[in-house]
Amino acid sequence: MTFETVHDLETPSVLIDLDLMEANIVTMQSRCDALGIAFRPHIKTHKIPDIARRQLEAGATGIACQKVSEAEVFAEAGFDDIQIPYNIVGARKTRRLAALASSAKVTVTVDSQAVIDGIAAAAQEVGSTIHMMVELVSLGQRTGTTPEAALALAKRIGATDNLRFAGLMIYPSDAAIRPRLLETLALLEAAGIAVEVVSGGGSGAISDMHLLPELTEMRVGTCVFWDWNSVSAGYVGFDKCAMRVRASVVSANEPGRVILDSGSKSIQSETIEGQFGYMAEYPAARLYKVNEEHGYVDFSAYDSLPSVGEIAHIIPVHTCVVANLHNQLYGVRGDSIEVIWDVAARGLVW
Amino acid sequence: MTFETVHDLETPSVLIDLDLMEANIVTMQSRCDALGIAFRPHIKTHKIPDIARRQLEAGATGIACQKVSEAEVFAEAGFDDIQIPYNIVGARKTRRLAALASSAKVTVTVDSQAVIDGIAAAAQEVGSTIHMMVELVSLGQRTGTTPEAALALAKRIGATDNLRFAGLMIYPSDAAIRPRLLETLALLEAAGIAVEVVSGGGSGAISDMHLLPELTEMRVGTCVFWDWNSVSAGYVGFDKCAMRVRASVVSANEPGRVILDSGSKSIQSETIEGQFGYMAEYPAARLYKVNEEHGYVDFSAYDSLPSVGEIAHIIPVHTCVVANLHNQLYGVRGDSIEVIWDVAARGLVW
Repeated sequence: MTFETVHDLETPSVLIDLDLMEANIVTMQSRCDALGIAFRPHIKTHKIPDIARRQLEAGATGIACQKVSEAEVFAEAGFDDIQIPYNIVGARKTRRLAALASSAKVTVTVDSQAVIDGIAAAAQEVGSTIHMMVELVSLGQRTGTTPEAALALAKRIGATDNLRFAGLMIYPSDAAIRPRLLETLALLEAAGIAVEVVSGGGSGAISDMHLLPELTEMRVGTCVFWDWNSVSAGYVGFDKCAMRVRASVVSANEPGRVILDSGSKSIQSETIEGQFGYMAEYPAARLYKVNEEHGYVDFSAYDSLPSVGEIAHIIPVHTCVVANLHNQLYGVRGDSIEVIWDVAARGLVW
Repeated sequence: MTFETVHDLETPSVLIDLDLMEANIVTMQSRCDALGIAFRPHIKTHKIPDIARRQLEAGATGIACQKVSEAEVFAEAGFDDIQIPYNIVGARKTRRLAALASSAKVTVTVDSQAVIDGIAAAAQEVGSTIHMMVELVSLGQRTGTTPEAALALAKRIGATDNLRFAGLMIYPSDAAIRPRLLETLALLEAAGIAVEVVSGGGSGAISDMHLLPELTEMRVGTCVFWDWNSVSAGYVGFDKCAMRVRASVVSANEPGRVILDSGSKSIQSETIEGQFGYMAEYPAARLYKVNEEHGYVDFSAYDSLPSVGEIAHIIPVHTCVVANLHNQLYGVRGDSIEVIWDVAARGLVW
């Protein structure tokens, strides 16, 4: 089956506006260039080697993946500088990581001795070298550790065969982290430990990059597409959102309510103010509920309902989880389909 | 890579307890048998032909799928009585539906003339016959139509070449729908229109089946695995939940908080009382937040935290959306892996 224009596509389909995506890539790279820091796109947002390649061509320094399986797909596609800002845990997983490090530069992050030891054992067994950053705990209250513990972990990494201390990682790298970052850098400097990379990340932290001059690189995924989360947080307007889910009206029997063929298996279940997506053509409509294959839209703000078969476009709440649900994304320019991408690293849970 | 026991599996992995699944299959079939109605498993929950085959072997009458692409996968696997309780809209999709109806008995549901006309055109072009049920609107306030409109649609189906009126569909088939159902049946009888099937559905409606003696069949998906939604609604206990997500602790640096390697790309984002999954080994722990690859668990109810690398099992909020996120499910008996299933119809958005 061939598709020449978006009108040939069945629904739900995920469209990527290439003009917007290309502009988003340039904008993010330019911001990092202006600050003199490297941009390292996080591919979890698209999971598509061709898009990452376009990001590298625009000047990006390498990629970040969130799991070993994603890294394997991108290494296979020729990427040779791969960061996994994650605590990789588990004997088989660390062994695959170590194998990957035989053919590509692989950098991971850690926040505990246990994670270091697991990865070290695998790297020693395989005979590869794994670069390792220590994660500082941030306002995100997720993973990461304290300055004192970071120093201890850095020393341990430096003293371990087949590991190489690569620097510090922060997520999200809000300006509020700076005192902790400076404290850690001072501890490392006093111990004579060189810090090659200070890696920041997070869409929300883009606006803080200039407030953290210690950053040497920035990892962000969402900025390639943006989404309603980004708009809601004030990072960009809807006019920068490159991903839209093309949906069809499948039922319009009730006053003020329309049902779309896009639900939690197409646009996921994350919400903003109780809404599951932003209706591009109908900004006053409310996508207030989803089942797996149904989206419920409140059209009471409008005098008339769209008809069964009418196409509507949804700007998703969160692009990264939407790409992960689909086998293909469609790169479009106007109504033309210019490229059909397989979401190569989707659904890889390990 | 071969896996003999669950201990060989990396995380996150989705385990299906075969003893529990087999018992769940028997229980649902027995309930329907006792009421003299057919059971038609909805495969959206597992998307795996082998599991549907086990359901048919236990006595099920055929399957339900939620989209044409799922139906195509199951037809390919040899299933020849496939219901799609959905308004199929779109020229390419209806053409594929009609093609499918050339080799299998295909039944769809409709709630408007527009949907009937689209499917009829495709069936007439292809030369196949499509069975068509009319959906009655229920308390679910989703798709469906009124008794009067149902009569008009049934007449239209009966008068259209290549379509065959098959009966009525309800979702969910709560007892409260009965007056509307009886009214519709009376209208159809008065018009001399035979009703072959009255198809009920929905996990919550299982307990109402005996209150709707007009039902000739029941479609349910979740009852093969059950989940926290089902437990929360009082349908079953956790001891009947056959799906568990095997997860690893990847960070345990803060008092009272542990981070798992399972987030919204592994267990989805649906919640019950603000929790994203039920921790099987730690019922007093609260999985209070997810990012894509991180699950945040509040362990403040416990004196000590599990360690990095420790395995924990999550009973998901909603099994159907979890199966859809994974490439494989692992059928286990005790610690042994008895079968590895490809989730054959996952990620098929059309």
